[in-house]
Amino acid sequence: MTLKHLQHDIPDIVIGRLPIYLRALQHLAQEGKELTNSDELGKHLGISSAQIRKDLSLFGGFGKQGAGYRIQYLQNKLYEVLNLQKEWEIALIGAGDLGRAVAHYKGFKERGFKISCIFDNDPHKVNQNIDGIPIQPMENVATAIPQYAIKIAMIAVPATVAQEVADLLVAVGIRAILNYAPINLETPDGVFVQYIDPVTHLQRMTYYL
Amino acid sequence: MTLKHLQHDIPDIVIGRLPIYLRALQHLAQEGKELTNSDELGKHLGISSAQIRKDLSLFGGFGKQGAGYRIQYLQNKLYEVLNLQKEWEIALIGAGDLGRAVAHYKGFKERGFKISCIFDNDPHKVNQNIDGIPIQPMENVATAIPQYAIKIAMIAVPATVAQEVADLLVAVGIRAILNYAPINLETPDGVFVQYIDPVTHLQRMTYYL
Repeated sequence: MTLKHLQHDIPDIVIGRLPIYLRALQHLAQEGKELTNSDELGKHLGISSAQIRKDLSLFGGFGKQGAGYRIQYLQNKLYEVLNLQKEWEIALIGAGDLGRAVAHYKGFKERGFKISCIFDNDPHKVNQNIDGIPIQPMENVATAIPQYAIKIAMIAVPATVAQEVADLLVAVGIRAILNYAPINLETPDGVFVQYIDPVTHLQRMTYYL
Repeated sequence: MTLKHLQHDIPDIVIGRLPIYLRALQHLAQEGKELTNSDELGKHLGISSAQIRKDLSLFGGFGKQGAGYRIQYLQNKLYEVLNLQKEWEIALIGAGDLGRAVAHYKGFKERGFKISCIFDNDPHKVNQNIDGIPIQPMENVATAIPQYAIKIAMIAVPATVAQEVADLLVAVGIRAILNYAPINLETPDGVFVQYIDPVTHLQRMTYYL
């Protein structure tokens, strides 16, 4: 029986915390630590230790009562749960200022994601490249994405055309979209969307100031 | 009685949805619409109309039963609730690749936030500028931030030094931090932190793929 068989209807909010746990474990590992526990993780993350134990228990626990967690073991289990044992290829749509910044960000490659193709509709940008990755015309989306079986895309186009781009991506097999355009996307069931919009985060904080 | 008097213990998760409502309203306004309702907003945002009505009722409602919402009016009320009637100044810490990308992002200025000073500890970067904003040495943080009464900072430094930078910022009066470094920050009560870490969003989606 694999871990996957234990996963029934895990709330998405729990899934959303797992990458945060994983990131904390990676930092502890970098500091040379081998063991941790829910109290230490909770203090570091501002999450109650009970919540962490409850979240991890949904996948079978990963630790022995009273002994805490072996960091390397828990990392590996979270990689397995989150399907991170292999590197994922990503298509980036948009090679303007924002797209270029996204393409230059080193954190993707360091943590298991590789931008393998870039598309833009500006003829002046096509055939240029960003860090060695050629910018392809939008017409290539329909062939390149299925050809390489790419399932994840990042949208970094103006808000006015983001929905149209999303529709195209879904039509050619994309199932997960990280959307940098400041607009909500409507997608069919089975297509997952996450948003990066720093302004909404700032506005959430100004309420309290 | 002002709106503020109506706000008692609003859950933070509700506050977090208000900028999303505001963004949707701005798009509707750009399309030339003057009226909307919770059904239309809900369909667009993938949030139930009941949830939207409930959220807005916490602040007094903003709409007449059956008549929907006047977009301009609701926008103005949300600006008021979120303290967005004035432009906020922001200090940016870190002028490496990530900091430069953040500084170049036009969405801040368009939506009420202005990066007014940039700091870096690299002597080669100091006295250069990004889009006309000079890069100052880290020693200036302690004088410049209080001098201009800046309350919001964005951290775009390596994860290894982000906590140290956050501690310094809190000590000089920063009360809201948008953290681009992929690490959790520990801050005292009354200091708000939000995170931009695209990899955690990708990892949340790979679970489902």
